[in-house]
Amino acid sequence: MKTKLHIIKIGGNLIDDAGQLNTFLSNFSNLKGLKILVHGGGKKATELSIKLGIEPVLMDGRRITSNKDLEIATMVYAGLINKNITAKLQSLNGNAIGLTGADGNAIVSIKRTSVPIDFGFVGDVVAVNITFLQMLLTGNFIPVFCAITHDRNGQLLNTNADTIAADIAIALSNDYEVILHYCFEKQGVLLDINQEDSVIPLINSDKYNELKTLGVIDKGMLPKLENCFRALKNKVSKVIIGNAVSITTENQLHTTLEL
Amino acid sequence: MKTKLHIIKIGGNLIDDAGQLNTFLSNFSNLKGLKILVHGGGKKATELSIKLGIEPVLMDGRRITSNKDLEIATMVYAGLINKNITAKLQSLNGNAIGLTGADGNAIVSIKRTSVPIDFGFVGDVVAVNITFLQMLLTGNFIPVFCAITHDRNGQLLNTNADTIAADIAIALSNDYEVILHYCFEKQGVLLDINQEDSVIPLINSDKYNELKTLGVIDKGMLPKLENCFRALKNKVSKVIIGNAVSITTENQLHTTLEL
Repeated sequence: MKTKLHIIKIGGNLIDDAGQLNTFLSNFSNLKGLKILVHGGGKKATELSIKLGIEPVLMDGRRITSNKDLEIATMVYAGLINKNITAKLQSLNGNAIGLTGADGNAIVSIKRTSVPIDFGFVGDVVAVNITFLQMLLTGNFIPVFCAITHDRNGQLLNTNADTIAADIAIALSNDYEVILHYCFEKQGVLLDINQEDSVIPLINSDKYNELKTLGVIDKGMLPKLENCFRALKNKVSKVIIGNAVSITTENQLHTTLEL
Repeated sequence: MKTKLHIIKIGGNLIDDAGQLNTFLSNFSNLKGLKILVHGGGKKATELSIKLGIEPVLMDGRRITSNKDLEIATMVYAGLINKNITAKLQSLNGNAIGLTGADGNAIVSIKRTSVPIDFGFVGDVVAVNITFLQMLLTGNFIPVFCAITHDRNGQLLNTNADTIAADIAIALSNDYEVILHYCFEKQGVLLDINQEDSVIPLINSDKYNELKTLGVIDKGMLPKLENCFRALKNKVSKVIIGNAVSITTENQLHTTLEL
């Protein structure tokens, strides 16, 4: 029987709100067994850009990453957020180790082609270093990934955190029983965005197509759900979308994904 | 016989000048055997502070670290500089892993007491995690440390990079034959600060006291030399002060320290 491994991605307001983040980290620390944390960047990078007079450029809701944007992302994601989360987990007796894809050559990505749109210094994951992650998990470390990867040619690249979480989950699913959690400020995927308790408990492929057709799932949620189904199709055991407490509280509302 | 371990600290203009940094990293990659890199912050943190309108406060040449200063240090040292060095070393086939003291609980420090001067969020090293570093070295990783540590209570702390290098060297000297290098933009300790080739080849304790009495060694160099002698008194095999090429070039001018 494979050992259970929880891979948890946090993003959105969960990172921007110190109270919610602390609640999450405390729950995360109480979660038994092997675990990996992947975090997004929240609004701090945008705030820093504004303070420095760098206007963020978005296209279809995705940030175009200039060289200056990449510097800011590296400072905020890999520095400020990653190291504060790591220090906090250490204070809660979790042996966290903060990582980018460059560290230990953990995650290699390739710069996205500039056709049809040049997204700038954005990388798509091409390899996850399974041996390295196994070494850390065996040593009872808690890898904490920010969404910065590298191309093996010395270039850091901004990478989508949801995708990183799915890629790590898929890479490790041969050796572990992987449970992939996407945690954010909502309790799950909502049927009505204005109704906090309208959580859809189960979404399978058919339901997903139905919700897409009905336009219930908004643009921000679509790539997340694509990652969920990609993970399920690649041997990840279980995928859950929920809030900060859903990872440890059984009866907390959440959305379970199924093929 | 103990295995050789090179611990190399880089700082000053070596970090600020992309050309010098690349030369150093290329030399560092060619250095055979086990190695650990410790880097300072250079001028980038000060530059970012100025851009953000945060005036750095110095006292006796030492920065007082406010909460905002610590955030900037964490972003610049642990994010921007550390991860770019790590990615660059990876491109040169070195399995680098960028770390703060919080990662893997590598270096624990204690916030300096506020008497007689409150230095703010500055930490003095109290413990180096030997087991963790041994695991990394055994696995042929190259630990790359920035000068941020943690207090095990969730607080990151700004820490002197020269001191971190000496403390890591001392901690590992029981198990390794440690050679500690301090690399900067000069070729070594200069007899005349205006004469680039006036390198003092050997400084022992007597010579050090003589140089101090004569006022040859300036304020910035004093704590570095104190760290050198502290390392030598604590079983570190060899301590060298030199420039970017001194680590791989035998006949390059440099200063050797001796008890």
